Amino acid sequence: MVIMTTTSSLAFLPVLERIAEEMERTPGRGRPADYIPALAARDPRSFGMAVAELDGTVYGVGEWRQPFSAQSITKVFTLALDLAREGDELWEHVGREPSGNPFNSLVQLEYENGIPRNPFINAGALVVTDRLQTRTGDAAGELLAFLRAESGNPALDFDKEIAASETANGDRNAALAHFMASYRNIDNDVPVLLDQYFRQCSVAASCGDLALATTFLARHGIRSDGTRLLTRSQAKQVNAVMLTCGTYDAAGDFAYRVGLPGKSGVGGGIIAVVPGRCTLCVWSPGLDERGNSVAGVAALDRFTTLTGLSVF
Amino acid sequence: MVIMTTTSSLAFLPVLERIAEEMERTPGRGRPADYIPALAARDPRSFGMAVAELDGTVYGVGEWRQPFSAQSITKVFTLALDLAREGDELWEHVGREPSGNPFNSLVQLEYENGIPRNPFINAGALVVTDRLQTRTGDAAGELLAFLRAESGNPALDFDKEIAASETANGDRNAALAHFMASYRNIDNDVPVLLDQYFRQCSVAASCGDLALATTFLARHGIRSDGTRLLTRSQAKQVNAVMLTCGTYDAAGDFAYRVGLPGKSGVGGGIIAVVPGRCTLCVWSPGLDERGNSVAGVAALDRFTTLTGLSVF
Amino acid sequence: MVIMTTTSSLAFLPVLERIAEEMERTPGRGRPADYIPALAARDPRSFGMAVAELDGTVYGVGEWRQPFSAQSITKVFTLALDLAREGDELWEHVGREPSGNPFNSLVQLEYENGIPRNPFINAGALVVTDRLQTRTGDAAGELLAFLRAESGNPALDFDKEIAASETANGDRNAALAHFMASYRNIDNDVPVLLDQYFRQCSVAASCGDLALATTFLARHGIRSDGTRLLTRSQAKQVNAVMLTCGTYDAAGDFAYRVGLPGKSGVGGGIIAVVPGRCTLCVWSPGLDERGNSVAGVAALDRFTTLTGLSVF
Amino acid sequence: MVIMTTTSSLAFLPVLERIAEEMERTPGRGRPADYIPALAARDPRSFGMAVAELDGTVYGVGEWRQPFSAQSITKVFTLALDLAREGDELWEHVGREPSGNPFNSLVQLEYENGIPRNPFINAGALVVTDRLQTRTGDAAGELLAFLRAESGNPALDFDKEIAASETANGDRNAALAHFMASYRNIDNDVPVLLDQYFRQCSVAASCGDLALATTFLARHGIRSDGTRLLTRSQAKQVNAVMLTCGTYDAAGDFAYRVGLPGKSGVGGGIIAVVPGRCTLCVWSPGLDERGNSVAGVAALDRFTTLTGLSVF
Repeated sequence: MVIMTTTSSLAFLPVLERIAEEMERTPGRGRPADYIPALAARDPRSFGMAVAELDGTVYGVGEWRQPFSAQSITKVFTLALDLAREGDELWEHVGREPSGNPFNSLVQLEYENGIPRNPFINAGALVVTDRLQTRTGDAAGELLAFLRAESGNPALDFDKEIAASETANGDRNAALAHFMASYRNIDNDVPVLLDQYFRQCSVAASCGDLALATTFLARHGIRSDGTRLLTRSQAKQVNAVMLTCGTYDAAGDFAYRVGLPGKSGVGGGIIAVVPGRCTLCVWSPGLDERGNSVAGVAALDRFTTLTGLSVF
Repeated sequence: MVIMTTTSSLAFLPVLERIAEEMERTPGRGRPADYIPALAARDPRSFGMAVAELDGTVYGVGEWRQPFSAQSITKVFTLALDLAREGDELWEHVGREPSGNPFNSLVQLEYENGIPRNPFINAGALVVTDRLQTRTGDAAGELLAFLRAESGNPALDFDKEIAASETANGDRNAALAHFMASYRNIDNDVPVLLDQYFRQCSVAASCGDLALATTFLARHGIRSDGTRLLTRSQAKQVNAVMLTCGTYDAAGDFAYRVGLPGKSGVGGGIIAVVPGRCTLCVWSPGLDERGNSVAGVAALDRFTTLTGLSVF
Repeated sequence: MVIMTTTSSLAFLPVLERIAEEMERTPGRGRPADYIPALAARDPRSFGMAVAELDGTVYGVGEWRQPFSAQSITKVFTLALDLAREGDELWEHVGREPSGNPFNSLVQLEYENGIPRNPFINAGALVVTDRLQTRTGDAAGELLAFLRAESGNPALDFDKEIAASETANGDRNAALAHFMASYRNIDNDVPVLLDQYFRQCSVAASCGDLALATTFLARHGIRSDGTRLLTRSQAKQVNAVMLTCGTYDAAGDFAYRVGLPGKSGVGGGIIAVVPGRCTLCVWSPGLDERGNSVAGVAALDRFTTLTGLSVF
Repeated sequence: MVIMTTTSSLAFLPVLERIAEEMERTPGRGRPADYIPALAARDPRSFGMAVAELDGTVYGVGEWRQPFSAQSITKVFTLALDLAREGDELWEHVGREPSGNPFNSLVQLEYENGIPRNPFINAGALVVTDRLQTRTGDAAGELLAFLRAESGNPALDFDKEIAASETANGDRNAALAHFMASYRNIDNDVPVLLDQYFRQCSVAASCGDLALATTFLARHGIRSDGTRLLTRSQAKQVNAVMLTCGTYDAAGDFAYRVGLPGKSGVGGGIIAVVPGRCTLCVWSPGLDERGNSVAGVAALDRFTTLTGLSVF
């Protein structure tokens, strides 16, 4: 069941195997996201989990090399890529406080004059993508290049079918983008921005790919090739935003149960960071009512309980 | 300037001294809370900071032995005392998600049928006190006994003048309590509850006292006498709620800058936890517009920057 | 079935009789208010309707002489009594816009700094009672004296059992009062105010009594003894507030169906004004989901359809 | 100053002249809408007022034959045109309750699942236009034909410059339309709908034109050629919606001061209906903070005071 890609330390392998066995025996798994057909078709019993260590070792259990739709997990990487380019100026256009409301809510956006509460609600991610697009001319391409480089997987790509489905169901995000544009907090044309945004969300990647791509956050900002993407302080900041805002309206609950910076996506994936130690990525398509993978949260909960590696 | 109370390790003393000097040179300090006269009269230039190590060593700089009004900092202790008694049942009556709104807001309370979002907004703290009152018959007395025992300071006490002022300005909290009572989420008579609540808030304690009283959270639930107050898991949970909800509507910002579980009060104090390592308490009465001590947040920010002790 | 009290014109008697027959044949009636036992016990099949003409003639059908709990209908009279005393200054403390939210909502009150949207939501009625209490020292007594004089019924009185039940279930109104007091928009002590308020709501009166007591609004401000309570302009204003805000969150629907200034109460009564012509009061205890009498609204709808007496 | 177009009864001419003189002497006029240049350029001292009697007589004072931008006044006509075609089914897609919030608010739309509160807030007018577009294939053309026929003015037309400006500033309305589309409450493609909507708003017409075009509401549904557009009941319903929702967040105030069904536009025009008697249209570009013409409301207030023609 386990495939190891390098020969270095596999410290957490026994823990992953135990978790995989427990998950096997657990019945309920929630329901896959059903707003687009390609997500709804996934089997809720699928499960994979990977650990990436600081030296680039990656290993896992279950379907840890099976690509799935990364969705909102990509928000972490676009945040890091834009923060690396513009620094603190970004925070004049998006906040870093928990939203206290379901992830699509327009209410707080209206009260706060078009400034989204944080980069991980859809409105905030649209702002980050808009700014990265202004700076690079191809935000989605920038993201893809980064993910390929960090994961070492040149085949990693967008899923055109999913991107098209997102576009066809894009009225809520179009509303958010036009609404913020009415407050002059969006620079690009809304259709251009939405195209960039939906392509990003459509990235297909495996637990192994995403665990590796996240290691710069466990290495305090250093990429896999040894260059620095973020300052130590910025890396800490991204981790802080993940912990307080990374799992929609369940950030408090996630902090309470798992106690690690994490970010979930409606494709059923969750990445998590143990600063200075390793990263994790877990995937299982069945979601709870707040949009987080049921088995994914449970597996991370078990991981921190069994290893004592919570930040608290 | 520094007074040490024991002879054991004083590892962070040079850091505290450096921070105190920096604060001395920093001009702006915000404004003390002005809703009651006794708080408004405090000098915004006052500053004290203490560290308590796991073995009970405590030391500090500035006015670290000067009592001040603990206010909302006490919410951490009543939460722990009630959680120790009733366990997870508490979470059916109060949530653990960030509120996403200023700390007195009634809006979310109405949307969520009288269940406050977390134990650190006023509504949530009223629920916790109500439940502790039901279980003990004297919630404020229970809190006082705990603080005296943990700080080793039998002179620690309520400030009757402050409690009376709070009562005279208590309409907002009375509204919250009656509102939740209309949803059957308050058991005790509202005037009895408010009396208990305002007495708790009025506790006068020093940075040294409060740092010591918080050490059970750095010791994963173990009190100063070696007995267990909270399970390891519960202690982790209280830390998680502090990190995500401990500083009113600025929890994200605090996590981003300081990166430690913390809890502030409008008296100008802030406690913070370095799990497994030590606790801190800082005090300076000038507040920012979100109700947190300006110099207090700055000092903790410097502490984690200088020591690298952030959880991220 | 019909009892006439004077020998003058009974122009609308045939219409009332026809409506009563139609109501007899109509099955559904909604459910009586159930938050206090004395209201819940009423028979939803009860029905009465009265017309009062400008000269003081009053007549009706069904149980039009049976006293019922006037509840929020009394808000019209306290508004008129306070407006007569203080004039436009009142409008600095309460608005006259529809609330756009269910009648107990605290949300808008918070956004608008403790100024209720209109005098007919509970918060607004509390403000009006508070101001009348400040001016008279006995707001409820003032109301009772007015109702007795206008209806010519000296036996009209408070219902002590209902007032006591309201007090026992008064947490929501206590929350509203304390909340507005925190904005300095309540002058009297909250318990004193609530006592006055709940006594007013408890007034027991019949359709005949209330139709007569309302005639000053059809006479452009002139009381039954020929003295003037309100200026012509003020009387028009009270009618306007009734039309736009008189039936909780269903004011638009009531205007659309009935087309008359009206005010309902959870006791199942509704008063309505045909300016310059007559007043109506209908009673049937079964309520719809927005708190208005099902048969009452239906009967008024039929009245304006059959007579063409809508203001539109 | 007065021009009469027919020789029949000119009953209200002396009143109009008196009002025009009073307005001449009144200094403050508010500020023209400034979100598009063509509106901002209008002189706030401009003033015109017209009365149309049931027989088609129309007369006025001031610039009553000067075309101005009708803007939201057109919402009354599209409502009537759609209601005439689909009847009560419309009310399953848009409510008829006051919004209780400023006219662009997305908040209530979110709470109420994409069903706007009434046809006169922008969201509601977009739904009405969408439905009329589905039924006619050319909602704006349908409106234009109706206005030309009722006013007898074949030169009445869209203002292409204004329509283009609206489109260029259309993000807020685009957000509303996409948002409702996400709830499946919009049938047409959003860009098509917005084009139709902005053309409607751009209609340029004079006080005389609009007073005439409104007479079907004073004639209980009968058009100028004697055919019936609306049933008597539907005409009453449109009047009721105008009274409770016709002046943005100031409907209560307008009912209180003027006491007539009315509808305002940000071009500075207001139409009003005296059911069974006549219609009025007044125009002056300076607006108050809630988007209603300052001199327009004042002139209508004077009209009902001087004539006693309020519905109350």
